[in-house]
Amino acid sequence: MTEIDRMLEANAEWAQRFPGSRPVQPARRVAVVACMDSRMPLFPLLGLEVGDAHVIRNAGGIITEDVLRSLTISQHLLGTRETVLVHHSDCGMQKTDDRALADTVEQATGHRPPWVGRTFTDLDADVRESMAILRSTPYLLSHEVRGTVYDVTTGRLREVLPAS
Amino acid sequence: MTEIDRMLEANAEWAQRFPGSRPVQPARRVAVVACMDSRMPLFPLLGLEVGDAHVIRNAGGIITEDVLRSLTISQHLLGTRETVLVHHSDCGMQKTDDRALADTVEQATGHRPPWVGRTFTDLDADVRESMAILRSTPYLLSHEVRGTVYDVTTGRLREVLPAS
Repeated sequence: MTEIDRMLEANAEWAQRFPGSRPVQPARRVAVVACMDSRMPLFPLLGLEVGDAHVIRNAGGIITEDVLRSLTISQHLLGTRETVLVHHSDCGMQKTDDRALADTVEQATGHRPPWVGRTFTDLDADVRESMAILRSTPYLLSHEVRGTVYDVTTGRLREVLPAS
Repeated sequence: MTEIDRMLEANAEWAQRFPGSRPVQPARRVAVVACMDSRMPLFPLLGLEVGDAHVIRNAGGIITEDVLRSLTISQHLLGTRETVLVHHSDCGMQKTDDRALADTVEQATGHRPPWVGRTFTDLDADVRESMAILRSTPYLLSHEVRGTVYDVTTGRLREVLPAS
């Protein structure tokens, strides 16, 4: 059985206890931007219920053009007014650098990726940089943003304050 | 109390029942690419446990450069070998078009976004296009991809087969 077959089977159980329809607009008017890391089930980790918040995730939880596109749709079309960032300890993005990543990919496939990996070394600094980018993006409706780091060994979130 | 304060409070409860550390490499070697929609708690919806799968999410669950960057890191650095796409019914991306979105943003803020919204009309067609892009991206290590659509009124996933 492939992984998707297992997921479809598990989904049949979820549908049995499905809590019912919710509006497309997130009830708590929040968007979460987080790393794709497999150890962060964001709904229970943040106390979210079905329908509460948008969840945007990529490698690192960094602010890319795609994240700005998603937040714009979230705010302008679907009413969110606050953004919460979630980075985490032991991140894969801290274990390499942009050139080493591109070299690895080229050696394995013969093709060098046409983008930059956006790896980072300092978690808190990257959270602060992400907050600064969102605060200075002129086409967003809301510039309310808070940043956190999740400890994958304890399950605890820690807030990162912006540079003063 | 702001939303992030509520989340930090809820997180303290999560930390009490935290299931323990897991490796950074996803145990089931899967990456999920899904829409940011607030009605999809992907871990219970797909039967995922902490540490099982990467979760990449954006507006629409479409394949962007950022998703390709994330999948590359997922496969080349962290060992995933299968990708599962999750679009869903009643998607905000079907309720507008790229020009109307840009107009809305410009009227509200005075700034036109420097990117295209990537809205779509046909869910299944967008899932098929996403599968085709991943299958033809030369620098990915694995081209194993399956596509699904989630029904937000029933909680059920339906597989979308690729164009033959």
